[in-house]
Amino acid sequence: MQSTTSAEIGEHSTQSEAKLFLARVAEETGMEEAAAAARRREVLAEIAATGTYSHTPEELTHGAKMAWRNANRCIGRLFWNRMHVFDERGAASEQAVFDALLRHLAFATNGGEIRPAITILPQAGDGRDTFRIWNHQLLRYAGYESTAGVVGDPASVGFTRICERLGWRGEGTPFDLLPLVVQHGGKPPRLFEIPRTHALEVPLSHPERDVFAGFSAKWYAVPVISDMLLEIGGIRYPAAPFNGWYMGTEIGSRNLGDEARYNLLPRVAANLGLDTSSNASLWKDRALVELNAAVLHSYRLAGVTIVDHHTAAQQFSVFERNEEKAGRDVTGRWSWLIPPMSPSATSVFHKSYEDRIVSPQFLHQNPPYA
Amino acid sequence: MQSTTSAEIGEHSTQSEAKLFLARVAEETGMEEAAAAARRREVLAEIAATGTYSHTPEELTHGAKMAWRNANRCIGRLFWNRMHVFDERGAASEQAVFDALLRHLAFATNGGEIRPAITILPQAGDGRDTFRIWNHQLLRYAGYESTAGVVGDPASVGFTRICERLGWRGEGTPFDLLPLVVQHGGKPPRLFEIPRTHALEVPLSHPERDVFAGFSAKWYAVPVISDMLLEIGGIRYPAAPFNGWYMGTEIGSRNLGDEARYNLLPRVAANLGLDTSSNASLWKDRALVELNAAVLHSYRLAGVTIVDHHTAAQQFSVFERNEEKAGRDVTGRWSWLIPPMSPSATSVFHKSYEDRIVSPQFLHQNPPYA
Ligand code: HEM
Ligand code: HEM
Repeated sequence: MQSTTSAEIGEHSTQSEAKLFLARVAEETGMEEAAAAARRREVLAEIAATGTYSHTPEELTHGAKMAWRNANRCIGRLFWNRMHVFDERGAASEQAVFDALLRHLAFATNGGEIRPAITILPQAGDGRDTFRIWNHQLLRYAGYESTAGVVGDPASVGFTRICERLGWRGEGTPFDLLPLVVQHGGKPPRLFEIPRTHALEVPLSHPERDVFAGFSAKWYAVPVISDMLLEIGGIRYPAAPFNGWYMGTEIGSRNLGDEARYNLLPRVAANLGLDTSSNASLWKDRALVELNAAVLHSYRLAGVTIVDHHTAAQQFSVFERNEEKAGRDVTGRWSWLIPPMSPSATSVFHKSYEDRIVSPQFLHQNPPYA
Repeated sequence: MQSTTSAEIGEHSTQSEAKLFLARVAEETGMEEAAAAARRREVLAEIAATGTYSHTPEELTHGAKMAWRNANRCIGRLFWNRMHVFDERGAASEQAVFDALLRHLAFATNGGEIRPAITILPQAGDGRDTFRIWNHQLLRYAGYESTAGVVGDPASVGFTRICERLGWRGEGTPFDLLPLVVQHGGKPPRLFEIPRTHALEVPLSHPERDVFAGFSAKWYAVPVISDMLLEIGGIRYPAAPFNGWYMGTEIGSRNLGDEARYNLLPRVAANLGLDTSSNASLWKDRALVELNAAVLHSYRLAGVTIVDHHTAAQQFSVFERNEEKAGRDVTGRWSWLIPPMSPSATSVFHKSYEDRIVSPQFLHQNPPYA
């Protein structure tokens, strides 16, 4: 009778995923057959010897781009091949990670001309401790529960409490930038304040109407998702923050408009003088349009890259055509791809997508805090 | 060796579905146990003798309501228990069916105070010929392909061509009511013109702006879906047209707004003086809001029942609570339940639904024409 240990099973699956990934990379990057075969032998030997392997810089770069291309919920995938990859697998301390994140923010922000980028921190499973970034996004506003309701972003209430337990104190404004929380292995996490120089923000205003009267709204320039796991060829990167630029509705419809977020529709409607006594006045729809118009206008005015949902949907159609030409299936999750405003006015709404998992990929993982 | 014929398999499944259905009806309508057991024996005997069975008027009525309650794509289900059921299982000719459909239209229209109703025509599988209504909805506008594009409703182009092949000639306006096409068994279908008295229509106007300048838009008052199959306790009703009242976005966003339908956004935007040279002006979103506002306003003005999508979503939340109280799961298809305008401003958007099939149910069936 033979018995198989779970380490052997892990080794086996790493092997098969590595083989699949290396074959795809070789094909897509036009590698010579001999070189591809040699690299394959090398990786298999490394897995046999150590149980894992490490990517070449080229594999890392192309793998990260493939993960973006395979992100079923992302409408921005046309630009999958235009992303800067920071190889920070050598980072060995929380301070080194923080420094890398600041470099990422500076590069991505680029004075407003946002550049898609990813910072890849050490991989898991090679015996060394990995890092986790506790933040959902590198830039994000705190949320404080009070008897009068939440001040700030209700989505951040739980994480803000954790930062406070770790000794952080925010100013208590509706737009306090949360500190970065970086954890190395099982050690207690370390907190770092983000210098204002690295957190570009956009004050919001409407081109014609004072929709924000009584509430100075703003938002940050760059969305950097920092809590997802990047999986490439069987190797897991638990910390690999990435950014694109914003699609306007993410801010105008969801972050500022959702009842469970900043909930600004009643205020905007009041400032517009809309009749909020009846649903049928479509005051929410009107307030949403003006809020979204304000977001697009303000980012333009500030010289910060942003895309409206119609243009994003058109770009996604080009992506679909490109992929078809390249002989690849486009997978997608319809419910995330449709924009939250006027979805039926975009082509995405009228199509269906297969929400199949394709590797390399970005994965949700359990938060490192309870 | 035993062999089972497909008739026996059919009989078996009718049996088990009938038993399930009868048990639910007995429970929901508070039937005495003795009466329920007697009815059950009666139905099983009828299936054993004839391979099928027929519903009592009470079973038919409650079963149809349950089918509405189980309609995963329907946001209007709060009112599932308030529907008038026309039992027209005795209809024996195309003319009798047409007369029944006119009675349905008159009842449902009710001078504008729309009443949900269903007309149930003979069941399938009992050896007699059934009817099929070829129309998608009882009231629907023709669509004519021309070199200058489609005149009328592009969604009707195929069916309009079929009506023409059957000898019908429309006037060629953008809003020609299609004739009713009723088929009995394998016979050629018969066409019937709907008298104007039975087709209430609403001329569309905007309360403040002339959004329809250059195009007199209107829509019919009552949506009566006529191409779905109703299944109750294993019995199939291939013709069972049903109606509710409209949710505004069905007309304002989809029928009139969709590019592949009346495609009115460019015209409305032009009439509003919007900048259509840039997606970021949100001209489509603005045109959609005003188009939807016009629809709601016009139906109100005409005294025709209509519900806006916010109110419909709130009513659906009440339905969900009611069902929970009644100990029943609410199934649903998220992609159909969310309204096509400002979906994230409704609670449906922020929930998930299980799209499981529950009987009794409405089913899509193959069109009776090629
Ligand atoms: C370049 C501009 C980009 C745009 C306009 C864009 C747009 C979007 C939007 C609108 C969403 C849905 C967000 C939500 O509803 O919460 C999304 C999700 C996503 N995007 Fe992109 N994206 C861009 C760049 C990127 C990049 C660079 C990556 C990775 C390298 C990426 C990967 C993803 C992933 C993994 C998700 C799903 C997030 C989750 O599950 O929470 N996107 N994107
Ligand atoms: C009383 C007012 C009603 C409202 C406001 C309402 C609303 C809606 C809406 C908005 C849809 C989606 C339509 C689309 O996107 O094409 C829908 C679908 C549906 N509704 Fe209702 N509904 C009502 C009454 C009814 C009734 C009386 C029934 C049946 C007895 C029903 C059964 C269905 C079914 C089966 C669908 C799916 C249709 C398909 O698959 O094409 N609804 N409803």
